[in-house]
Amino acid sequence: MGLTFVLDGEGRPVYSVSYAGRPVVLPSRLGFVLSADSSFFTGFVLRGQERRVVDTVWRPVWGEVAAIRDHYEELTVHLERMGRWLDIVFRVFADGVGFRYVFPKQAGLRYFVVGDELTEFRMAGDHKTFWIPGDYDTNEYPYTTSSLSSVDNAALVAASTAIAVRVAPDRYAVQTPLMMKSADGLYLNIHEAALVGYPAMQLHVDHASLTLRASLVPDCVGNKAYLHAPFATPWRTIIVSDKAADILASKMILNLNEPSKLASTDWIHPMKFCGVWWEMQTGKGTWSYSDYPDSVDARGQLIPSGRHSANTANVKRYIDFAAANHLGGVLVEGWNVGWEDWFGNWKENVFDFVTPYPDFDVREVTAYAASKGVAMIMHNETSGSATNYERQMDTAFRFMKGWGYGAVKTGYVGRIIPRGEHHDGQWMAEHYVRVASIAAAYHIMLDAHEPVRPTGLQRTYPNWLACEAARGNEYNAFSDGNAPEHETILPFTRLMGGPMDYTPGIFRLRGYSTVAGRQVHTTLAKQLALYVTLYSPLQMAADLPENYAAHMDAFQFIRDVPVDWDDTKILEAEPGDYVTIARKEKGAANWFLGAITDENARTVDVPLAFLEPGRKYKATIYKDGVGADWKTNPEAYAIETMTVDSKGRLRVQLAPGGGAAVSIRPL
Amino acid sequence: MGLTFVLDGEGRPVYSVSYAGRPVVLPSRLGFVLSADSSFFTGFVLRGQERRVVDTVWRPVWGEVAAIRDHYEELTVHLERMGRWLDIVFRVFADGVGFRYVFPKQAGLRYFVVGDELTEFRMAGDHKTFWIPGDYDTNEYPYTTSSLSSVDNAALVAASTAIAVRVAPDRYAVQTPLMMKSADGLYLNIHEAALVGYPAMQLHVDHASLTLRASLVPDCVGNKAYLHAPFATPWRTIIVSDKAADILASKMILNLNEPSKLASTDWIHPMKFCGVWWEMQTGKGTWSYSDYPDSVDARGQLIPSGRHSANTANVKRYIDFAAANHLGGVLVEGWNVGWEDWFGNWKENVFDFVTPYPDFDVREVTAYAASKGVAMIMHNETSGSATNYERQMDTAFRFMKGWGYGAVKTGYVGRIIPRGEHHDGQWMAEHYVRVASIAAAYHIMLDAHEPVRPTGLQRTYPNWLACEAARGNEYNAFSDGNAPEHETILPFTRLMGGPMDYTPGIFRLRGYSTVAGRQVHTTLAKQLALYVTLYSPLQMAADLPENYAAHMDAFQFIRDVPVDWDDTKILEAEPGDYVTIARKEKGAANWFLGAITDENARTVDVPLAFLEPGRKYKATIYKDGVGADWKTNPEAYAIETMTVDSKGRLRVQLAPGGGAAVSIRPL
Repeated sequence: MGLTFVLDGEGRPVYSVSYAGRPVVLPSRLGFVLSADSSFFTGFVLRGQERRVVDTVWRPVWGEVAAIRDHYEELTVHLERMGRWLDIVFRVFADGVGFRYVFPKQAGLRYFVVGDELTEFRMAGDHKTFWIPGDYDTNEYPYTTSSLSSVDNAALVAASTAIAVRVAPDRYAVQTPLMMKSADGLYLNIHEAALVGYPAMQLHVDHASLTLRASLVPDCVGNKAYLHAPFATPWRTIIVSDKAADILASKMILNLNEPSKLASTDWIHPMKFCGVWWEMQTGKGTWSYSDYPDSVDARGQLIPSGRHSANTANVKRYIDFAAANHLGGVLVEGWNVGWEDWFGNWKENVFDFVTPYPDFDVREVTAYAASKGVAMIMHNETSGSATNYERQMDTAFRFMKGWGYGAVKTGYVGRIIPRGEHHDGQWMAEHYVRVASIAAAYHIMLDAHEPVRPTGLQRTYPNWLACEAARGNEYNAFSDGNAPEHETILPFTRLMGGPMDYTPGIFRLRGYSTVAGRQVHTTLAKQLALYVTLYSPLQMAADLPENYAAHMDAFQFIRDVPVDWDDTKILEAEPGDYVTIARKEKGAANWFLGAITDENARTVDVPLAFLEPGRKYKATIYKDGVGADWKTNPEAYAIETMTVDSKGRLRVQLAPGGGAAVSIRPL
Repeated sequence: MGLTFVLDGEGRPVYSVSYAGRPVVLPSRLGFVLSADSSFFTGFVLRGQERRVVDTVWRPVWGEVAAIRDHYEELTVHLERMGRWLDIVFRVFADGVGFRYVFPKQAGLRYFVVGDELTEFRMAGDHKTFWIPGDYDTNEYPYTTSSLSSVDNAALVAASTAIAVRVAPDRYAVQTPLMMKSADGLYLNIHEAALVGYPAMQLHVDHASLTLRASLVPDCVGNKAYLHAPFATPWRTIIVSDKAADILASKMILNLNEPSKLASTDWIHPMKFCGVWWEMQTGKGTWSYSDYPDSVDARGQLIPSGRHSANTANVKRYIDFAAANHLGGVLVEGWNVGWEDWFGNWKENVFDFVTPYPDFDVREVTAYAASKGVAMIMHNETSGSATNYERQMDTAFRFMKGWGYGAVKTGYVGRIIPRGEHHDGQWMAEHYVRVASIAAAYHIMLDAHEPVRPTGLQRTYPNWLACEAARGNEYNAFSDGNAPEHETILPFTRLMGGPMDYTPGIFRLRGYSTVAGRQVHTTLAKQLALYVTLYSPLQMAADLPENYAAHMDAFQFIRDVPVDWDDTKILEAEPGDYVTIARKEKGAANWFLGAITDENARTVDVPLAFLEPGRKYKATIYKDGVGADWKTNPEAYAIETMTVDSKGRLRVQLAPGGGAAVSIRPL
């Protein structure tokens, strides 16, 4: 990696990035518009600079690998403009460059407002780009692949009726992580690391100059951030390689985050789980107990609709299933009162997070789960009312601990309260970190749905296991679905920031919905492969027990696949086309391999050189059956076993929209 | 009182009010612009109406009188417009009319947004009006007396530099309670009662039509209120009489509020208090411990400036003073860390409400106060960051109860967070009630500074003893001061909604400030009279113990005057000119009388017919001394005693800006 930094003739900070002599970021501007100084991007004088080299290794609490090398050269430049100071810190890694702004403690800049951040990334060509619209409130869009100069989100935003809330005022803006590929085969990924106390960065695409310009999510009065020096912004990250696999293997974003702030982490346990959820997504059951909030009897009690999924008996069925199948936890959504009119009213006080519906017996469920050795996972849907959640958060967490819940799934469906704030603005960015931090104080693990997309903060708060913040498998249930290429793009985009609770493992791929024509856009074998290709320490077995019962031979892979790893090998990958990954189970000699393709059939043919030399393994291959096809024959699969070693190769055929999952255990 | 209600030819609701045949409110429109229906003010059909008469008596937990008669005729009209329903409820009292809108539970209107409330009050003449600017964030303005058609707040707003935050976008808007007097001698007061879940109503003055139009305080996106039917708005109140004293005696606003929601009230104790406060207002001491937040030593500890008032020794001095002088409580401001940069930065996380400065020993102060039988009053300044306070409120209240504090003074200086919200909008109106309600759950009494002005909610939450929400005595310390007429207007305006923590009792009226030329704009005797004329169950003896020590004969009145009453007689009053009130001590036969005047000298000559016939009393009269004058000789006072009975009169001379205070005890 090459980095240059200069002040131009007018004292404007300018940087550029190259990779093996090839331009990656052409000279691009840096700086701000501040409340205290509207020209905090020009007229700077270089007052000093420092360089250092760091090369250390750290061990994540959980992750894709057991140890991570953090190796970079750092350049800090001290700039002054009319008595006000700005530092810019660059870190150059083998796989990319990160930089952040630091406002040092200074008399002339204490409290100030960021009107705009002017960071630019001027591209060297009209790259092929994998993008979703820049939206202040959601990342739940399908990906578009186009040239940079063709980015225009207007039609996509207008068509995305399945999203609860969307605010995309700039038709030429895109979200990060943004994945690009140059005509000459360079892979580029732009994102940010350590989003703390600052709004999310989206990117405005200037078609003419092929320049990406930082676009911070504003608050309700149009300000971007309220800062108090000393303050360091999140890192702006540029990961580059001529091999797509290197992008997925990069640990740069994690390395740019702070080490764990938690006093202890022995209570953090990655796990698989099942739960009362797909029933509601597919229309079999409901979150709510009654059909309408005014369905009340003479005593004012809600009249049950009879379709409420989170009832004690049904939940015990899931507990039984989890206990029988090596799933650590059970998630129950819709257990607490308020779901009859929880959504879409910009209503501040929806849930109290501690009052169950009459048919959900917390005591009985807790006791039953404990007797079966299954952990219960709490569900706290906020309906976007962060103020209400913050008021009651201590009460909610005390309730969880009182009943032995060690994990919570939060949700932020709908418009944010404080009204006028956005999911991705500074206030909410602070909120998510606050929730993670308070949850940690209670020894509770966190899985946040509908938050800002992650930026590697799982290093700092390792109890923050996963986020949603993208189109998950659920879109196959309640919309026209995710395109077959969707899961080949996610690792290069959304997952660059952190694990996603994608909820894979749907076995009944058609006929599950009350809406005609709906189907999951993968084969069954691809659903298995996702447990490996979409990394998360929290993986749901999302389908219904009865649907798994029909294919327990295939379910064996879900039983076996771990969620924490000692090593990971990105064997081959191309965004939008295919991903093949092998991972070694944490503390064991077993390997698991996942391979997926887009809408095109594909032959995987990869060496098994990652296996321990001289050792024999039994490989169990869960693959697409003959004639399998995501659209016409998704549930056809085949299971075969063979003996393999490090000198061999794995060759397996993937159907259109298909995949393969392989467990490889020492003989 | 006369009330008419009609639907006009276009189905628009129209009401009018008369008093003894004289027009008070000419035919005026009612209605709304709603998100669901932008014409929810026309095309209505009358579907039914009901009338009833109510005549009851209730006893407030504390107040100006022991029992309050609630007597009204009620008319409810049921209106329908295209399948949507609106009720309007009118209550006609002897002293005025109140009306509210009720959105009944209905299929066509569940959750909805109020874009505008169109309530009008069309006046019958160009009345003399006592007004402050309509401002979304503050009531801390001096009053202007002008004709209605001359209302224009622009110059006043521009000149009001002493206010921390002001947002007055409509130069023709005024706050309520709005006091008016017609050319033919009718006194009119317009306000609202029971502001719950709704923004405050301000009034836009249309000069040409002499019409006052409701102007609700918006939220950050311009909406006025988010409602969920069934919902009843606050009452709009019109109090009328041809005697100004009747306005002050009216209990209509209290009657329109809901009865107490508290399970018990025996822990609520009106009281006088002193405290570490005037030291800071006058520049003798500071709230902060250090001069600057970066005044830290090598260990990072704040370096004391030596001027921090809330230190243990100084606070014990106030405790001694309270114990020696029948003051029930001591308030300590500036005891907790954060005051070095608490203000003006729109900073969310300022105070934690539980961490004292190093020189304030909570344990020692608590023990000392308990040993002296003095109650400590907690201070929670939020600096407008309501989100921060709500997060920590339980912690703050638990801290108070843990240390035996039974009352809290809250503060909201500065711009509100959630950013974009206003002090007087719906969100904050809900916040203040939430604080009162949670405080009640902890058995804590509340004194809110810088909140929305009160609307009689002390009936519903009798632990909510007082509010500020106007220019208090403090403006004499840090600004050019309150005009001598100020306290003669307050009872007709701000105090119509509820008690004010005005902080009377300043004895050193000149030379107290480090700023040259500052002085309190009253005489000393008038400061005493304010304990009677400005009703509050919480009254501060605001001056320093050493200033009281110089005039302990005058201080005797403050020692004696109670803060809770069995009866009240408004003996004479004219807004802007004078107020004379007599009150009978709760559970005792003692009477206390206060008389104040504006900048003009005045002779009070009132009958003492309120005394028990045939009984002799000793009257101690604290009056302006010979040559007293608020400007040139404010501290001249005289004390005389005489024997009086119900057949006699009290005749006493008030100096310019002067007053008189009288205690009348049975012989």
